[in-house]
Amino acid sequence: MPKTALIIVSDGTEQAEAVIPADVLRRAGVDVTIASLQDRKTVICTQKVSINADALLSDVADRTFDVVVLPGGQPGSDNLASDSRVGEILRRQESSGGVIAAICAGPLAIKSHGIAKGATLTSYPLVRDQLKAAGYQYSEESVAVCKNIITSRGPGTAFKFALKIAEHLVGAETARSVCNELLIE
Amino acid sequence: MPKTALIIVSDGTEQAEAVIPADVLRRAGVDVTIASLQDRKTVICTQKVSINADALLSDVADRTFDVVVLPGGQPGSDNLASDSRVGEILRRQESSGGVIAAICAGPLAIKSHGIAKGATLTSYPLVRDQLKAAGYQYSEESVAVCKNIITSRGPGTAFKFALKIAEHLVGAETARSVCNELLIE
Repeated sequence: MPKTALIIVSDGTEQAEAVIPADVLRRAGVDVTIASLQDRKTVICTQKVSINADALLSDVADRTFDVVVLPGGQPGSDNLASDSRVGEILRRQESSGGVIAAICAGPLAIKSHGIAKGATLTSYPLVRDQLKAAGYQYSEESVAVCKNIITSRGPGTAFKFALKIAEHLVGAETARSVCNELLIE
Repeated sequence: MPKTALIIVSDGTEQAEAVIPADVLRRAGVDVTIASLQDRKTVICTQKVSINADALLSDVADRTFDVVVLPGGQPGSDNLASDSRVGEILRRQESSGGVIAAICAGPLAIKSHGIAKGATLTSYPLVRDQLKAAGYQYSEESVAVCKNIITSRGPGTAFKFALKIAEHLVGAETARSVCNELLIE
């Protein structure tokens, strides 16, 4: 059975932070489902790139995934942070020991849904203070790993973020091979 | 008037190589049109990411753009290399002094349509020999600039590629500001 990933997208998701993890994880052999928070599969990302999700979140909300990926972008990350279904998915992910991965302003959903309290996170610098005020430890690394929580900073760190998720799911050798194939410097 | 960019996508385009330039150039204030080579706006990229173009190529084929961007991915880049409308657009771009930018296997369209003969290009390493055999000089840099031709290597160099295009269109200061905003390392 291949490893599985759920990438939750919304209107106002940062397009590169959704597409790069999908690209990298599928190259690594992970079965990726891009699911839309809205009641339609088409979402309009921050820079007006229109993407068709594979499913609606409501269709897959009761499935379990090896990793749940939360992209950033505004208002996409606020939508994830305020959606009760995302909260349920993240709490189930936490209690089952699954991986939660969030980038840019995506970690705000970890905070708002009360996940992994006190863990070390990174994020887009603008949301650092909100995470620290909620009691999280803060890292300035481009990718921070704290037990099963993988966080990263922004579009420019999205390849590293996705490769770290791949490494967790399918191992360092496959991740390195994908890294070479993508010509990541 | 803002600067304009045409990004030509097809079924089998590498998703990150289409989305990253759109993202970066729109952040830089460029008026970007993503146009589909097919007779429908929805294209399915190499890793099964489904993107809706802004227009059909046939709808915009007679417009002029400050830059024409050719992503890679297979069979997307072969589709661009074999499409006569792409050839017409590139020849017009060359004769008017506009910028042509191609990444990964995208430079194969420059070759097949007989553009910028003898210019220095880079590309995904696998297509290097085809470009050299056609008389192009070859660079191993992550982004190669030769007069109005900007080429790059693969998904992992797509941010640098897009920033170099932005620098050409709107100047180094704006490009640097977008680079900082994206947290490119």
